[in-house]
Parts: sequence; structure tokens; C-alpha cells
Amino acid sequence: MRWLKPLPLRPRDPVHVVAPAGPFDRPTFEVGLAVLAERYAPILRPDLYAAHRYLAGEDTRRAEELSHALLDPNARAIFCARGGYGSARLLPRLPLADAAPLFTGFSDLTSVHAALQALGRVSIHGPVITQLGKQPQAVRDAFFRLLESPEAPPPLTGTATYVPGTAEGVLLGGNLSVFSRLLGTPYLPPLDGAVLLLEDVTERPYRIDRMWTHLRLAGVFSRVRGIVLGDFTSCEEKGADYSSADVLRDLAREEGLPCAAGFPIGHGDLNFPVALGTHVRLDADAARLTFLEGAVRA
Amino acid sequence: MRWLKPLPLRPRDPVHVVAPAGPFDRPTFEVGLAVLAERYAPILRPDLYAAHRYLAGEDTRRAEELSHALLDPNARAIFCARGGYGSARLLPRLPLADAAPLFTGFSDLTSVHAALQALGRVSIHGPVITQLGKQPQAVRDAFFRLLESPEAPPPLTGTATYVPGTAEGVLLGGNLSVFSRLLGTPYLPPLDGAVLLLEDVTERPYRIDRMWTHLRLAGVFSRVRGIVLGDFTSCEEKGADYSSADVLRDLAREEGLPCAAGFPIGHGDLNFPVALGTHVRLDADAARLTFLEGAVRA
Repeated sequence: MRWLKPLPLRPRDPVHVVAPAGPFDRPTFEVGLAVLAERYAPILRPDLYAAHRYLAGEDTRRAEELSHALLDPNARAIFCARGGYGSARLLPRLPLADAAPLFTGFSDLTSVHAALQALGRVSIHGPVITQLGKQPQAVRDAFFRLLESPEAPPPLTGTATYVPGTAEGVLLGGNLSVFSRLLGTPYLPPLDGAVLLLEDVTERPYRIDRMWTHLRLAGVFSRVRGIVLGDFTSCEEKGADYSSADVLRDLAREEGLPCAAGFPIGHGDLNFPVALGTHVRLDADAARLTFLEGAVRA
Repeated sequence: MRWLKPLPLRPRDPVHVVAPAGPFDRPTFEVGLAVLAERYAPILRPDLYAAHRYLAGEDTRRAEELSHALLDPNARAIFCARGGYGSARLLPRLPLADAAPLFTGFSDLTSVHAALQALGRVSIHGPVITQLGKQPQAVRDAFFRLLESPEAPPPLTGTATYVPGTAEGVLLGGNLSVFSRLLGTPYLPPLDGAVLLLEDVTERPYRIDRMWTHLRLAGVFSRVRGIVLGDFTSCEEKGADYSSADVLRDLAREEGLPCAAGFPIGHGDLNFPVALGTHVRLDADAARLTFLEGAVRA
């Protein structure tokens, strides 16, 4: 597959801020928006703040907002207010094949990433706006650098080797809950030879097992070459004598694929941005993820 | 597809009791076991009470236990101690194509049902042993009748029409969480023209939406003819101004398939047994599910 990269951003470029998933806390959002506005020129619709149950407004509103952003030739990137839930509902009506700006986000936005990668498009798994204000300067700098420079970013380091070995391939995946909800749909990215990134939040260990087992039964682990585990935030079972890490380690060992864990990616204190649809090398023994290219065109 | 029905049970027949999913409370189990033992002759292994994290023992133990029961030509049925989680882990190693006795259970056992139906086999969605003692006599009688008589059982009635209309087809499905975790795997039953049964427990409304949306994106609702909703027990969002029923009603209306809700099937006070892989007629206007045949051979 030939991967399509968007154009690099430059400071003060127009960028869209959209809310395709859940409603959000406005003050927290505004802190992150201020960080974004220091670097780029954010465009937002006033109905961004809509709320309908667990969604940031009805499907029609969210789909229109994101579709408009995807088709805007003058904007260079799209940032998402928050994850939560709701992007997958929009997939059949998004003009993803004609997307111009670089899409960014994580968590629930994993479904948009996957659908873009199913079309051979690079996107950035990185902070949403409600998270951006809480991220340290190092993460913000890495985010802006990844958006602006065609160079490969510096490697990331995890904290544990679950299965030793090395693997090279295209980085795909994101949130385990959201990614596994695309199995059996047309929105699953091309997994053959890929390095699979997984992270999650507030999922009990048996649920992590259930989702991982779903990936296994669907043949995902016979297609990918390696597994990169980010943060599994607040995934512990109260009163249990085992941790979510114990469960993940055992699951990874059952696959026998190179796997390292504890990468600063996901819902924790650090959510370093990574480019999905770009080539990486996982050295599981050293718990190191090396990036072989950048996210944007030279 | 030609559906294969097992032989009918007779009182005092040998039956297996297995624990392919989660560990369970022994006193609760023993109450249900006593109910079963009044009618049949249960066979259990002493290691049935094993526990490993959230599983009733390691995969090897659970797979051996269930495989032995499936291949026992002298036993007439298989009952499960409890659901929870764990059956899906065993699917690739179960001798389902050679299964002799009638398999029963619900909730996590939905994965075994689906895999059996993928092979054209009828099984009974009904109480697990830890639930059996809490079910009223009417449910117990209906269970024994369904196991023993080749006649179609009396209809079941729901409480609400979500989408009017009628649908006739083979009944498939079970627990929404577990069933949707088979999308994209070889264990999904033949859904074309089916009537889909769904129930769940302790799933927040946005999660119900996420699972339902997964079914939609995987094309399930363009294959089935109607939807039967059982109990959605303890599925309310604390403090929300909408109910799980509101969410389910809206989801059903988006599909436009005949759909009735509130059938006494699932994790609630009543879990009436129904035969998966048999022909039914859903009259959504009357919220009535009519059974056109029994679960066992004449």
C-alpha cells in the first residue's frame, strides 16, 4: 500500500476543531484551545458545544462539522475536542477518501483513524483538546513538531518487555475498545505486517481479555508483526490479586509476537503523538519504538 | 441450512454440568444444582470449582471439561454453572462439530451457542445453574419442557413495540456484549433471514450504542429480519435524563426492522428458555414471539 501523507503545518495555519464524539467540559476545553491557539489559528463552529445524551450533538451535526473540516482545502489539520463515544456512528457518512487536512486525536477517534488508514491515509494519534492543556511542554512540542516536520521524530521508550524480539512495519491501532469494535466492518485498516498499538482506559481486566480474545479470534495476531502497548489507565479490578498488566502480559505471551508495554501513549499523564500509517521499528527487548519517517510530506 | 436437533431428554437422564466461563458462588450454585437434580442426573468434575482470576480455572481445564461433555454419547444435555467471561477463549479448541448433547446456558455462553449455530446446531438459551434456583417454577417447567418435548413451546410476550411489523426466521443471538465480540470471526452464526435476540446486563447506554453500532457497521441489520430484545438489566446511566430503553428504541428505529422489547429473557427475574436455531415468528405490534417448532427431535 502507498501511504498518503498530508502537507506539513506552519505556525498560524488555519486548523479545524471538531467534536465528533462525546460532549465535554468547556473550561477544560478552553485551556487546551488556548494552547492550540498559541501555535495555529483554530476554526470552530458555535454548535461545537452541543450535547445530546452521551454525544456532542446529534449525528447530523457531528457529521456535518467533521465532513466540512475534512473537505476544507484551506485548513491544514483537524483537532478533536474530546473522545468519549460517537465517532463510529458517523463513519458511513464521512468523506474520508477526499480528506485534505491531517486528522488528529485518540481514544474514540481511533475509529476515524482506522477508517482513514483503510484508505491508505496517515493520521496522528495524539492529544485531544481537553487533554492538551494537561500535557507537559514536551508532549506539546512533540505534537507541533510531528505536525510540521517531515523528519522522523525521536524514539519513544516503554517500561516493560512482555515478549522479546523486534518487528518492523506500519503503525496502526489505538484504543483497544474502539479498534476492536471495527472487526468485521469495512473500516479495519490493512493489518498485514503492521505493528499494532493498543491502549485503553477504565476497562476491567476481564474486558481487556475479552477484547484481546476478539482480536485473536478475528485473526489479527496472525497478521500483525508486533504489539506496542500504551497506557492502560485505571484498568485495575478492585480487590483483585492480579493487575491489568499481569493479564496483558499473559495475553501477549499467548500470541508470541514481540511486545513491549508502558509506552507514554494514551489516557495517562503523557500522551506522546505518533503517526499512524507510518513505518516504525519495535525493539521489544529494549522497549523502544523507533520512527522511520514523519507524518507529513517533505 | 438444515438445522440439527439433539435427542429429547427424559427425566433421570444423565446430564453434564460444566463451568467454561467465570468462577461462581458455591452455595448459589448448589441451590440451582438441587433443582436440576430433581429432574436429571447431573455429572460434575470436582475441579468444576476451580478459580483462576476471572475464570473457572485455566483454559486447559475448562476446555477439557466442556469437550468431554460435548463428546459424551451417554449424556443428553449440558448445563453451565455460570456465565461471566471465558467461553470465547475456548472456541478454537472445542469439538463443536461432533457435539452430541443439547447445550444450554446464556450470557457469556452466547459464544458457544453462536459457534454451534455456525455449524447448524440447535441449542437452548436458558438459565445457568447459579440462576436456576432463583427462577420461578414457571421458568423451570418451561426449561424442562423445552428439553423434553419436540412440540413448539407457548409464545412469549414482551412489553413494548419499538418498530412495528412482523418477521419470521431462525432465532439467533443472545447476549449483546458477547455476540458482538464474534463479529469478523468464524464463529458468527448464519444471520441471513434470522430473527436476532439481544439482551445484556450492567452495560451503560453509550456502550449499548457502541455494540449496536458495531453490529450495524458489520452489516448485521441488513441481514436479519427482526429484533427481539430481552432484559437489559441494570443498564441505566446514573443521573442521566434518558434510559437504556430510550437508547435502544432509537437504535431500533434507525434500523427500521420489526422490533419488540421487554421479553422475559436474560439477567432479570425471569429467564424463559428459547431454542436458538429454530424457526420463530415475531409480531412486533403485539410484542409477541411465537415458536414454530421445539428444540429437540421428535
